[in-house]
Amino acid sequence: MADAPQPSAVRALWAARGVAVVGVSDRPGSLGQLPVRFLERYGYHGPVAIIHPSGGQVMGLPSYRSLRAAPGPVDVVMVLVGSDRVEAVIDDCIAAGVGTAIICSSGFAETGGKGAALQERLVAKARAGGVRLLGPNCIGTVGVAAGQVTSFSPLFSGEQTELVPGPIGFVSQSGALGYGAVSLAFERGLGLGWVVNTGNEADISAVEVMAAMADEPGCRGILAYAESLGDIAALRAVVERGVPVAVLKAGRSDAGARAAASHTGALAAGDRVVGAALRQIGAVRVDDVDELLDAGEVMTCPPLDGGRIAVVTTSGGSGILAADALEGRGLSLAALRPETTADLDEIVPAFGSTANPVDVTASVMSNGALFDRTLDAIADDPGVDGILACFCVLTGKDVDDVVSSLSRVAQRSGKPVVAVRTGADHLAPQANAQMRAAGIPCYQTPARAVRALAALRTFSRERPSSAATARAGLEEALDRVERPSPAAPRRGASEQEVKDLLAAAAIPVPAGRFVDGPEDAARVVEECGGAAVFKAVVPGLVHKSDAGGVVVGVTADRAGTAYDQVAGLGGRVWAEELVSGGVEALVGCAPSPLGPVLTVGVGGVLTELFNDVALRLLPVTADEVEQMVDETRLGTLLAGVRGAPRADRAALVEVVCRLAELVASWPTGFELDLNPVTVLAEGRGVRVLDAAYVAPVTTDAAHPA
Amino acid sequence: MADAPQPSAVRALWAARGVAVVGVSDRPGSLGQLPVRFLERYGYHGPVAIIHPSGGQVMGLPSYRSLRAAPGPVDVVMVLVGSDRVEAVIDDCIAAGVGTAIICSSGFAETGGKGAALQERLVAKARAGGVRLLGPNCIGTVGVAAGQVTSFSPLFSGEQTELVPGPIGFVSQSGALGYGAVSLAFERGLGLGWVVNTGNEADISAVEVMAAMADEPGCRGILAYAESLGDIAALRAVVERGVPVAVLKAGRSDAGARAAASHTGALAAGDRVVGAALRQIGAVRVDDVDELLDAGEVMTCPPLDGGRIAVVTTSGGSGILAADALEGRGLSLAALRPETTADLDEIVPAFGSTANPVDVTASVMSNGALFDRTLDAIADDPGVDGILACFCVLTGKDVDDVVSSLSRVAQRSGKPVVAVRTGADHLAPQANAQMRAAGIPCYQTPARAVRALAALRTFSRERPSSAATARAGLEEALDRVERPSPAAPRRGASEQEVKDLLAAAAIPVPAGRFVDGPEDAARVVEECGGAAVFKAVVPGLVHKSDAGGVVVGVTADRAGTAYDQVAGLGGRVWAEELVSGGVEALVGCAPSPLGPVLTVGVGGVLTELFNDVALRLLPVTADEVEQMVDETRLGTLLAGVRGAPRADRAALVEVVCRLAELVASWPTGFELDLNPVTVLAEGRGVRVLDAAYVAPVTTDAAHPA
Repeated sequence: MADAPQPSAVRALWAARGVAVVGVSDRPGSLGQLPVRFLERYGYHGPVAIIHPSGGQVMGLPSYRSLRAAPGPVDVVMVLVGSDRVEAVIDDCIAAGVGTAIICSSGFAETGGKGAALQERLVAKARAGGVRLLGPNCIGTVGVAAGQVTSFSPLFSGEQTELVPGPIGFVSQSGALGYGAVSLAFERGLGLGWVVNTGNEADISAVEVMAAMADEPGCRGILAYAESLGDIAALRAVVERGVPVAVLKAGRSDAGARAAASHTGALAAGDRVVGAALRQIGAVRVDDVDELLDAGEVMTCPPLDGGRIAVVTTSGGSGILAADALEGRGLSLAALRPETTADLDEIVPAFGSTANPVDVTASVMSNGALFDRTLDAIADDPGVDGILACFCVLTGKDVDDVVSSLSRVAQRSGKPVVAVRTGADHLAPQANAQMRAAGIPCYQTPARAVRALAALRTFSRERPSSAATARAGLEEALDRVERPSPAAPRRGASEQEVKDLLAAAAIPVPAGRFVDGPEDAARVVEECGGAAVFKAVVPGLVHKSDAGGVVVGVTADRAGTAYDQVAGLGGRVWAEELVSGGVEALVGCAPSPLGPVLTVGVGGVLTELFNDVALRLLPVTADEVEQMVDETRLGTLLAGVRGAPRADRAALVEVVCRLAELVASWPTGFELDLNPVTVLAEGRGVRVLDAAYVAPVTTDAAHPA
Repeated sequence: MADAPQPSAVRALWAARGVAVVGVSDRPGSLGQLPVRFLERYGYHGPVAIIHPSGGQVMGLPSYRSLRAAPGPVDVVMVLVGSDRVEAVIDDCIAAGVGTAIICSSGFAETGGKGAALQERLVAKARAGGVRLLGPNCIGTVGVAAGQVTSFSPLFSGEQTELVPGPIGFVSQSGALGYGAVSLAFERGLGLGWVVNTGNEADISAVEVMAAMADEPGCRGILAYAESLGDIAALRAVVERGVPVAVLKAGRSDAGARAAASHTGALAAGDRVVGAALRQIGAVRVDDVDELLDAGEVMTCPPLDGGRIAVVTTSGGSGILAADALEGRGLSLAALRPETTADLDEIVPAFGSTANPVDVTASVMSNGALFDRTLDAIADDPGVDGILACFCVLTGKDVDDVVSSLSRVAQRSGKPVVAVRTGADHLAPQANAQMRAAGIPCYQTPARAVRALAALRTFSRERPSSAATARAGLEEALDRVERPSPAAPRRGASEQEVKDLLAAAAIPVPAGRFVDGPEDAARVVEECGGAAVFKAVVPGLVHKSDAGGVVVGVTADRAGTAYDQVAGLGGRVWAEELVSGGVEALVGCAPSPLGPVLTVGVGGVLTELFNDVALRLLPVTADEVEQMVDETRLGTLLAGVRGAPRADRAALVEVVCRLAELVASWPTGFELDLNPVTVLAEGRGVRVLDAAYVAPVTTDAAHPA
């Protein structure tokens, strides 16, 4: 191990050539003893150096006064001393050239202001000295294959605990929950390769760890528990390399988000944005620990190239539950072709079912050759993308037969096969292990299996295009027309200023101009085509409508009265053409901790009522904008509801793309709301009827340390 | 046992004084051998008689040629012969006075027409002879305490299978899935008292079984797997007696419903109706087998008298996941009172959290007295209805300490306490059993525990009022005003006829009358207040608007033209006052397999777009109508959106109540759609602008056998 090349600073978390531990003593209950014991117990082959001020025997082992004095190579040091003594250890790291420190100590940012300052100082020192930090306030890491248990989790004290190696990485911002989940993974036989608890993430983040895990040649997927996600672009890069990623993102609710803030000191990203971003980059978001591990089981399956699932069962009830779950998860019951049904009719008795879900009956199951024929007929159907086999009480030889038949068809067809066994473990204690050995994930209920299949479908999709491609796609959608790209509006810009700027970017707004006194009112109405909207332009007047500052449908004969009413508010009067009919959309852009977010959805009065909007991080492709429209009822509305004409969807999509292009050059942090954007009948385009801009906050007051 | 009084026919399924089995032979693999073995293995004390045509030794035991010849008492006979031989067994039952037959044989309605006819004949014979049937096509029943395993499920062949007695009933329409779930219940230590698989339900239904289980003195709750639910009133009666009921209702999706139809031959009730009905009667609906058993665990908890939960944890991550789940399940994080927080501040160190979720930290946990103080402070807070304690990797003595502290606070406070342990079983093999013994349900993840708490909250609510009370409540809401109660409209009634009938029941419709020729048109507009709606009345013309048969906003000067247009369609012309503004609601009534369903929600063009409606089986109370309004966005709309005035919600609720009262006397099977019902500003009432009636289908063509 000492001959191996030096690992990168992050890779040292699981592939260190040698380890040092600071904070070990002979005092009973000394936490530092744990990793020393664990490294021995789990077979770590590299040198383990105890750093102790005495330089004498500790735990019956030699200790060293400093990292410099310890025999090398030391790639990682585990720090379990009081928070006030950590800085000295970093000094020692710098002096000894140790590149990575796992700071288990608490008493930093998680305790508030003083601890946060201490943490900041620590990071500054480490950065200056070229040392990378994990934590503080973390429970450490595991390199499973190497037995590198650089962790003090009580999991590794368990008498029966064994490390179960495998190709999946596991990253958790929470220590206790993370190692609890790891224990459940090992218990079910789900092998892990690399386990990291990132704690406060003062330096190394969960996403950076995930990227490094993805670099491991054997990595087949990554599971993560996260309370905040920072660098979404880096995570996107992991997914784009073809590494499946599933994230249990906590802090979903308002209440949960508050708890997250007090737990990690991190500002939680709006949960809806996180969900949209994960979907957008092709990661799977799960809701619970079980579901996270269930998703891990399918990471090593062959790809599921479509959503059409054949359900094979001996239990009608399980088949129905599977069918229910498929529909709820965006998959479908495969429609078997007539040849398949004809084949099945020859095999399956009358009290079974040859329609999907296929109820093969116990009599077919008890005859291995018949069951094989059934599975082959189904797997050979080109309309079947994957097979879900559901059983209940399986015992004895039945288990061997089922495993051998499923394994055979999986290998022969190359299609994913997933099993369900809704029965007590003791009825078939080896069943799950046999299934796993045959590459067939096995779940306890149909609903859980279907959730995992849905995750596999996401893992199997073509990776979303990268940001660069997105930009290219967007430009293509806009036909590479040379356009001006106006800078962001000034702070406090009026509706009219924002609209002028939109118009300059080829985003259509109603024709209009300021009314030049009462005698001009009728003339401007005629210019607008005989009907106009008058709007008050009064600096600081936000709720124009409520104040009587908007008059809709002004005709020439009423123009004077309308002018007097609106001008009476003390500002100027803007007149613009009256746009009636059409579908009201909302198009907006707002900042988020993950970057600027584009919002498209149902506009007008329905916006706040139904909150029916789709979100995407910028940049977006035209395809993504189309998806946004279809994710919401806007798609249905644009197609024409109750006899309404089909609306100009293409024009809306183009305008959204133009907007995405326009704001790309603006300084981040602004908010822009176009609502309503009226989408007229097909061929007649769109008009942005109202536009509001909020400039970025320029102070840091909103970001407490 | 022979001295016990004769059980009722359904109770004999689990409390028979003696059992007979028909269909046992010495042939290897004879299914009939299984219950004979099981009854002995699991300690059934009553006589077990094998019925065999030879009358000789079978399985080394004496057999009897007929039930009449068998030594009594025989309260139940288990039938495992071919479908063609079942009728003869029923004859024998009648002759011997055996009141209950468990028909395990398949080949009946589940195989289609011929089998269905056989099943019908069987039921007719049994009814005439006073014999009750379970099945056919079922796997039998278990009386757990008595060891009455009148089932041939392979579960009972499992070497390690043990019956785990308890106070919960389990009913399943599916045999394999049902016994799979039972095996999982036993495995986790969830004790069951009575297990029944109802199969085809030719006679005894799942709901009838549930009612009989509820009659058992020790019954604390009932779990059910159902693909169809018939007698919802009987199920309601079970819930109203205070017995918690959780139902895993399968056939949720369209695809699932199709599978259900082919599985049981039952017409699946529209799933949305089933969901609404279960909610309405106070039963809990679950989505998966795990969740069903999880709900069973809380049936023996003390009531959860409110939704405010205190989360106590040593894992910040678990606390956040719990908080997330609470919000999603209609529960909330309790806001601790200042005294509680002050108490906690004295106990919990700075790196913990004294806000809810309370992160007590490992140092508090390792000190039993401190942990007890923490729990007491929380439990004593009157703003806390229940406690959720979340742990991860618990090992060794920690488990005993946690159990003893939680058990102590549960007993002392009388509030429900639920635990989470997110860690491998082998780390603390006795933990779950210890928790269970202390009356504390323990789950593997926070989300599962919270789902169970939400179920407990439903079980703990005041039972919904019975149908009789509902009627009384409704009449009270209508101030017992004497009203005519018109009979149902005639088949093919026009909009105007339906509206006349509504008006007669004090349900307001726009004032209007037929136009008496073109010269009358202007006059009728004046009568309507200067603006009217003209509608074509042409028998058979359904889509009036599309045909140009509706003109809105007719003024006197345009009355003649409008009349000509509408009259041009070949029928008469109806004119009514123009009702403008207001909020559009939908009020309707439709038949369902569970009875007539009332529908209230967002009306007009938004109906089909957002499908935002609430459903209730009739009868309803005025309170339930209020809830229906609040379940949908209609509640928000009526309160006034974007400056719109508050609408006359009270008038809408009254009209819905009147409608519910009106249709109560109509023959079932009709459909009635009032859409839109315009709700005007407060104090101005509602108007039913459009009404359509579809008479009941009178043939049975729509109900294939």
